[in-house]
Amino acid sequence: MPHLAVIGAGNVAWHLAPALETAGHPVTEVYSRSLNTADLLARRLYQAAPTQHLDFRQSPAQVFLLCLADDAYPAVLPQLRLPPGAILVHTSGPLPTQLLAPYCPQFGVLYPVQTFSKARAVNLAQVPFCIDASDAPTEQLLVALASGLSQQVYALDSTERQRLHLAAVFANNFTNYLLHAADQLLAAGQLPPTLLQALVAETVAKAQALGPAAAQTGPARRGDTEVLAKQEAWLQAHYPSLAGVYRTLSAEILKFYHQKPI
Amino acid sequence: MPHLAVIGAGNVAWHLAPALETAGHPVTEVYSRSLNTADLLARRLYQAAPTQHLDFRQSPAQVFLLCLADDAYPAVLPQLRLPPGAILVHTSGPLPTQLLAPYCPQFGVLYPVQTFSKARAVNLAQVPFCIDASDAPTEQLLVALASGLSQQVYALDSTERQRLHLAAVFANNFTNYLLHAADQLLAAGQLPPTLLQALVAETVAKAQALGPAAAQTGPARRGDTEVLAKQEAWLQAHYPSLAGVYRTLSAEILKFYHQKPI
Repeated sequence: MPHLAVIGAGNVAWHLAPALETAGHPVTEVYSRSLNTADLLARRLYQAAPTQHLDFRQSPAQVFLLCLADDAYPAVLPQLRLPPGAILVHTSGPLPTQLLAPYCPQFGVLYPVQTFSKARAVNLAQVPFCIDASDAPTEQLLVALASGLSQQVYALDSTERQRLHLAAVFANNFTNYLLHAADQLLAAGQLPPTLLQALVAETVAKAQALGPAAAQTGPARRGDTEVLAKQEAWLQAHYPSLAGVYRTLSAEILKFYHQKPI
Repeated sequence: MPHLAVIGAGNVAWHLAPALETAGHPVTEVYSRSLNTADLLARRLYQAAPTQHLDFRQSPAQVFLLCLADDAYPAVLPQLRLPPGAILVHTSGPLPTQLLAPYCPQFGVLYPVQTFSKARAVNLAQVPFCIDASDAPTEQLLVALASGLSQQVYALDSTERQRLHLAAVFANNFTNYLLHAADQLLAAGQLPPTLLQALVAETVAKAQALGPAAAQTGPARRGDTEVLAKQEAWLQAHYPSLAGVYRTLSAEILKFYHQKPI
């Protein structure tokens, strides 16, 4: 079983590092810009050393797992010093696999399709992992690594992974923003957020059961332009930025189901 | 226990009528423009007669429950003929309670905060019901009716109910549309829709546990304008209408977390 060094100690590393160790891959080092942050994650592991340095030439690890924010890669990668035989792996959806080519002869990607927070336990066994690699032996190693975490392991190239990440932005980031908008509307009217819990749960269950195209309901789906105009006008008067969101999304639904402009 | 007539045989009536009967309120008639549709629902009830006529002057029912699409009310209401002592109730979120005032001295609203389809069983015990009424005895009757279905019964006036319905449009209609957009992106790349199931489930669970403002992640939340520009440009080239949705929602998230324009 290859040993791992984890570079980054944020939300992704927080969940992946202990799980990989449980799956039989000892973590030898945890890097973070902040030694304190590195130490917090290292304490969740058996014998990992926290470090602030990116010189791993003396490291006993073979796999170097980058768990960074996408915009931190350009600063971190040129500072990395790796031992001979190292395999460099990133965990990003949008970044191409080839991003790592200048820094290590063997490289790959292990992208978990999930949103992580330190405060939330996640059942990794139900998370799809997407892998890509510079060569067949590296791919085999990443398949073995991912299979220790989950039965859902997919080989996707950079283009497919970027498409999947973009779909995830719609399904997670934007969906969460809409739940936020709904909460704001309720809170401003002193209505409890629990009023929408059953509806949101059913929205997701129904979209998965019937497919979201068949599950669509509401004024835009019905083409009820009178309700649409009234609701948009009310939002424009009270929450102008939500009025823009309302207009854009209603227009798309109208276009899809009725081929007509708002 | 007052007897009911159900006016409309669509998705809402399909779920409410049998549940109200189980709760002890016999349904005596089911109206639909199409006798066949009325009959399909009447067959799910003990002794309900299907009808195409809106003259209920000889009806044994006391409560007349309107389960219509919002835009059907203006055509149906003026045709209604009710017996003395009737209570007229609608089930719409956006329509005001007073809409019914010209047609019956006692009236009210019973609004279930849920999305219904004939093909999906819904656990009404977990659905919030919002009631409003013309007078205290009618309100009591509607509280009793709703309490037979669910423990979550709220008295909301028309303004509060309209606000809640608008929040529900964001939480359900628009969320479903985003799931549709994500599915379209995956399907066009021949990626399986199951890739996003764990993510969507966690999105909802996390938003409820942490609150959606704290749960927000993604390029716009991080202020990663490079990824935002790239993803928008790619959508503009491949799915121009999704590019508009992407731009609008990213701009709102940026504004909320970073006070800066896209």
